[in-house]
Amino acid sequence: MTSVLSTPGSAGSASAPGIDLGPAVALSCRECGNRVELGPYYACMECFGPLEVAYEFTLRGDALKQRIESGPANIWRYADLLPVPADVAQTPNMNPGNTKLIRADNLAKELGMRRLWVKDDSGNPTHSFKDRVVAVALAAARKLGFTVLACPSTGNLANAVAAAAARAGIRSVVLIPANLEQQKILTTAAYGGTLVAVDGNYDDINRLAGEIAAEQEDWAFVNVNVRPYYAEGSKTLGFEVAEQLGWRLPEQVVIPIASGAQLVKVDKGFTELGELGLVEPTPYKVFGAQATGCSPVSEAFKQGWDVVKPVRPDTIAKSLAIGNPADGPYVLDVTRRTGGAIEDVSDDEVIAGIKLLARTEGIFGETAGGVTIATLRKLLASGQLDPEAETVVFNTGDGLKTLDAIAGEVGPTATIKPTLGAFEAAGLA
Amino acid sequence: MTSVLSTPGSAGSASAPGIDLGPAVALSCRECGNRVELGPYYACMECFGPLEVAYEFTLRGDALKQRIESGPANIWRYADLLPVPADVAQTPNMNPGNTKLIRADNLAKELGMRRLWVKDDSGNPTHSFKDRVVAVALAAARKLGFTVLACPSTGNLANAVAAAAARAGIRSVVLIPANLEQQKILTTAAYGGTLVAVDGNYDDINRLAGEIAAEQEDWAFVNVNVRPYYAEGSKTLGFEVAEQLGWRLPEQVVIPIASGAQLVKVDKGFTELGELGLVEPTPYKVFGAQATGCSPVSEAFKQGWDVVKPVRPDTIAKSLAIGNPADGPYVLDVTRRTGGAIEDVSDDEVIAGIKLLARTEGIFGETAGGVTIATLRKLLASGQLDPEAETVVFNTGDGLKTLDAIAGEVGPTATIKPTLGAFEAAGLA
Ligand SMILES: Cc1ncc(COP(=O)(O)O)c(C=O)c1O
Ligand SMILES: Cc1ncc(COP(=O)(O)O)c(C=O)c1O
Ligand SMILES: [Zn+2]
Ligand SMILES: [Zn+2]
Repeated sequence: MTSVLSTPGSAGSASAPGIDLGPAVALSCRECGNRVELGPYYACMECFGPLEVAYEFTLRGDALKQRIESGPANIWRYADLLPVPADVAQTPNMNPGNTKLIRADNLAKELGMRRLWVKDDSGNPTHSFKDRVVAVALAAARKLGFTVLACPSTGNLANAVAAAAARAGIRSVVLIPANLEQQKILTTAAYGGTLVAVDGNYDDINRLAGEIAAEQEDWAFVNVNVRPYYAEGSKTLGFEVAEQLGWRLPEQVVIPIASGAQLVKVDKGFTELGELGLVEPTPYKVFGAQATGCSPVSEAFKQGWDVVKPVRPDTIAKSLAIGNPADGPYVLDVTRRTGGAIEDVSDDEVIAGIKLLARTEGIFGETAGGVTIATLRKLLASGQLDPEAETVVFNTGDGLKTLDAIAGEVGPTATIKPTLGAFEAAGLA
Repeated sequence: MTSVLSTPGSAGSASAPGIDLGPAVALSCRECGNRVELGPYYACMECFGPLEVAYEFTLRGDALKQRIESGPANIWRYADLLPVPADVAQTPNMNPGNTKLIRADNLAKELGMRRLWVKDDSGNPTHSFKDRVVAVALAAARKLGFTVLACPSTGNLANAVAAAAARAGIRSVVLIPANLEQQKILTTAAYGGTLVAVDGNYDDINRLAGEIAAEQEDWAFVNVNVRPYYAEGSKTLGFEVAEQLGWRLPEQVVIPIASGAQLVKVDKGFTELGELGLVEPTPYKVFGAQATGCSPVSEAFKQGWDVVKPVRPDTIAKSLAIGNPADGPYVLDVTRRTGGAIEDVSDDEVIAGIKLLARTEGIFGETAGGVTIATLRKLLASGQLDPEAETVVFNTGDGLKTLDAIAGEVGPTATIKPTLGAFEAAGLA
């Protein structure tokens, strides 16, 4: 199976052997296992398969647990498990992570579940899980000698890259679909940097980014030529969930899918914790969530395919609108291996999902969160998800960035003159 | 000096003597010192002055410090210093606080300062410091027997009250000016509850809320009839800053002013820490920030007045648009006593402040944050604020909620077709 990355090879300016990225020792091909030294590489020279970070972990068990628990209250407490230098917490960065794991009893009751948690990643600095992956990409990019932080983005990554580059004092170049939500455009622009609106969808832009990366030696496109490092950042979602549960794995997780990297890496995080003796390696099922208007991975799952057939996205869940998802095949592997499933939901269900989570738990998620909550509900209805099993559902973004989705749906109960008489007449008491 | 609270007296349903609100033992008048039992009271029966919470703290010094440091990573670690029951962390609430104190070296350099921090309260659950005060108000309101959580709001409080009530599973009633930012209206509405848009400004609505509170015995208007408890929540901003600095007080703080409660309570928090032996009681100066379009407290400060002359607000900083600020006189006391000052800035300066903070530190604040950064700059320029002294500036809200302020100011650098040729032709490399 080959990756969808467009430009294999060795673009990038620096590849000093012996580069210090903590426990990371090499890159290895996810398809053929071929190894290359740490560097700005992302596709295998032998088979064009995607590369991922290979580690030699020096600590395990209680020694590792102690290091983590005495670390900073952000993703850098897991630095011993990430491709970052040991002093990463001292470099200027957004220090993301340590977001809340919220016991969602009201929502559980409404859905007839026994034990439900929301991992609320809207608490990150730019209000999505993308701050995690960008922070790891930035740390690696610096060590690899890049001087510009860049990305193609469906929106949240744009915010995260522009903010992180501002904090780090380096240039950012962000490519977005021109029809993105105004909230995500304006926020990205506020941080300064170069923001390029492109007449096309994400998949067009992703291709363009690959072409630019091949030309601009000093530019780290976090999710293209630095992707192996970047993607590892999502392991921290799995690490945090397990630590917040008291070093246990949940029985079920529900995770939204765009490229699929997040879902795959949460599974990787859980697996590593088991292997390193930080948790009992208890069984868990990974469920994936997509919007029906962009559901190539859900489609492949249901059809029993091993590959993902690209689609042209059409959904309000723009942050998940990747029609040709790089990690699609690996998402299929993970969900099937763990006994999970993938489901997709209509835009109306997405809106209902946003409102349900806000009304029951006071958590206002973006459309991606609506996709995930609606998928949770659908998987329960179809009996694929067990209401008795402990479940963690991921809210990965913030409702403030996708207000248009609910603008026609909610509003003031009444509009009145500023008098007690008017208030009483409106029947609001 | 009398308070501007409109309806003195004893509205409210419950006032069991011996009510358990932790270290809180009574309410006392800020003007005449008269004491009343804990209950749903907010104005002195003797002089109409505002009531505040009186405590008997049982712990101090290292014993208290240990309790705090082993407490939860949210405002409840300071429960021993707040009017809340000891089991408050176990009740369903938003668990706010523990927001980042960010070393702002880039901004410091740009402003010629030596040691600058941003206390970034946009990291709270609904992205403003209001989650703190609402959490304390909710805890007290429950103990006082109220069943509905209500408020008049300039926007952020609306979000915080609606979300907290949703999480707690109780009804909310929120009154807002009808011309508020769409972001704040839609977000509040998303959480459900009753949202009343009122044709009037905040001061009209605040008056109306006082009238409704007198009629609805079961409604806790967090910032009206539960205000003494509510306001204490802002002490946690002071506590966190000191703890995050390693149990030290900064030399200067810059804080935005609407009603003025936050500024006054940060000072109270610092003072309590000194008295309880948690920090050296080193001197500090408190500076206040307003938008010129609503600057009654700044005006009073400059004129040397002891009272604040109400104004009719006209500024893009809507969250600070309180023309008749309840705590105005106390803000004057605090800033004068500590040797600080109050300054106000134009709407253009507010926008420049938002952009400056975003560009230098990757922190996207709302208009209130822009007011504070712009005020910091103005105070430096006039020599009132010492660039050599360690300074903490408060970013209390989120730029996503006030996007209109920058919508005409920032945007994509370029819009292109999705080809390498178009990218190169645009001269972006
Ligand atoms: C809020 C949000 N959730 C989830 C995802 C999916 O991430 P991935 O591409 O890793 O599947 C995205 C991607 O942009 C996102 O913005
Ligand atoms: C973001 C923000 N900052 C500061 C303030 C000022 O708070 P206070 O009324 O306590 O002065 C407000 C008030 O609504 C606010 O919304
Ligand atoms: Zn290979
Ligand atoms: Zn009195």
